[in-house]
Amino acid sequence: MRVILLGTAAGGGFPQWNCACALCTSGAPPRTQDCVAVSADGEGWYLLNVSPDIRAQILATPPLRAGPGPREIPLRGVLLTDAELDHSLGLLMLREAGGLPVWAPDTVLRALSDQFPARSIIDGYGGWEWLSTSEITIDGLRVSVLPVSDKRPKYARSSTEDGPWVVAYRIEDVRTGGVLVYAPCLKSWPDGFDEFTRDAGLVLLDGTFYAPDEMSAATEAKVGDGAQLAMGHLPITGSLARLRSGPRWAFTHLNNTNPVVDPASPEHAAVLDGGASLPLDGTEFKL
Amino acid sequence: MRVILLGTAAGGGFPQWNCACALCTSGAPPRTQDCVAVSADGEGWYLLNVSPDIRAQILATPPLRAGPGPREIPLRGVLLTDAELDHSLGLLMLREAGGLPVWAPDTVLRALSDQFPARSIIDGYGGWEWLSTSEITIDGLRVSVLPVSDKRPKYARSSTEDGPWVVAYRIEDVRTGGVLVYAPCLKSWPDGFDEFTRDAGLVLLDGTFYAPDEMSAATEAKVGDGAQLAMGHLPITGSLARLRSGPRWAFTHLNNTNPVVDPASPEHAAVLDGGASLPLDGTEFKL
Repeated sequence: MRVILLGTAAGGGFPQWNCACALCTSGAPPRTQDCVAVSADGEGWYLLNVSPDIRAQILATPPLRAGPGPREIPLRGVLLTDAELDHSLGLLMLREAGGLPVWAPDTVLRALSDQFPARSIIDGYGGWEWLSTSEITIDGLRVSVLPVSDKRPKYARSSTEDGPWVVAYRIEDVRTGGVLVYAPCLKSWPDGFDEFTRDAGLVLLDGTFYAPDEMSAATEAKVGDGAQLAMGHLPITGSLARLRSGPRWAFTHLNNTNPVVDPASPEHAAVLDGGASLPLDGTEFKL
Repeated sequence: MRVILLGTAAGGGFPQWNCACALCTSGAPPRTQDCVAVSADGEGWYLLNVSPDIRAQILATPPLRAGPGPREIPLRGVLLTDAELDHSLGLLMLREAGGLPVWAPDTVLRALSDQFPARSIIDGYGGWEWLSTSEITIDGLRVSVLPVSDKRPKYARSSTEDGPWVVAYRIEDVRTGGVLVYAPCLKSWPDGFDEFTRDAGLVLLDGTFYAPDEMSAATEAKVGDGAQLAMGHLPITGSLARLRSGPRWAFTHLNNTNPVVDPASPEHAAVLDGGASLPLDGTEFKL
């Protein structure tokens, strides 16, 4: 299985367009918004989330470029972990794909129909399918799902739908046995996560925040201590101690306030010392 | 007045992510989706349309970057010519701006509330105002409006609202007298357009298509002759003969099928011979 990290930042990317904090103006390597492409055969590709940066991400990634026919594309489908705009808005930019299947939790499918009716707009272009996540096998990849959070996106705060609203995916290459776990949003280290990641070759973990208080410190916003936990993101300081030998661990979905985006920071070094990596956009893994 | 062309391509940009036609694979200079920034004083900036590429466009344009305060931004507002996704989707990416005024025709404001409820999502972040286009003066810029088309966006085809659905803007610097006309969508050379552009220093014209039949030829899609007119875009071949001396004329909003994107094409040469330019992303004008 080939795994390409198309984007490795949280919503807004790094630097964030509306932020002039010390990190955003530091010149640290830029990162687009979180999105991953996977393929068993290197020909048909599936997206894990679809960021608003998807147009630039596809153009920057040769295996995802169109061809050889004038409107042939290598994308075969999309899996959404949640209904956040940062993970789903790119669907509207793929509207002229000729149609793709999209798998997501039931809550997410409903939010994209009710509170944010992306589905009806996209369906106007024809060929799209909206499918509930479950055990599925697609083009040599066996996918399973772990609920990890009930955090609703801001635009759907009023929804009374029961969760899960956020899931993690385990994707196994049926032929090679290689396993990827994709968990860009973790409210906590969820029940069953050790088992879910047991035989993984690579685990992409929620690295939104490094520490629980960084957002208020960096932006001078009055967010308050512990806000990141309320925002549905377990800080790296909370997950680093849970890593065990076996899988490669990598933090993605890094917020612009997260000091680890600066390769010279002590926090960056602490992540490496803790046994995890902080890959940049465009990094490819083979599993 | 400073005018910066943030993007100069039609929907999908150039190359288009899902297209492998001869032009899209030619290596001709890339262009992001249509968007313009204007400022009377070089400090406060207004966007004309907001493309889905807005994050990358802002990061690539130093005067639009955040600062000096950690969350201070130089954007002061947005003017929409229509409700096309390519011109409005970027609003969702600006949602954390702290609020901006957005001017648009009444039909557009309603479409962004009813068929594509971007407004309610964005309003959840606070501080946004939605204002009907009219004669307005903002930060030293006097804005007037000309209806140019009743073309509804695809997602709002069923709307029974009367038009106009598409307008052109004339923006005058009150101090210098410099005048910009922005008309990225023209169904025809509209009544009153000669007068509207009479004393303009720069007219940004709809250059979506060069000729009426290029879309079906380039993509092998069965669009049929004259489809571009039905899609609400007067081809360059139809407008080139209407240009007169006086203003600088520039075609933007170029579709990926438009041969003028290739600087070596005879069509590109014909535009220059006809007295217009084909500026790339990042081009700045002073009026």
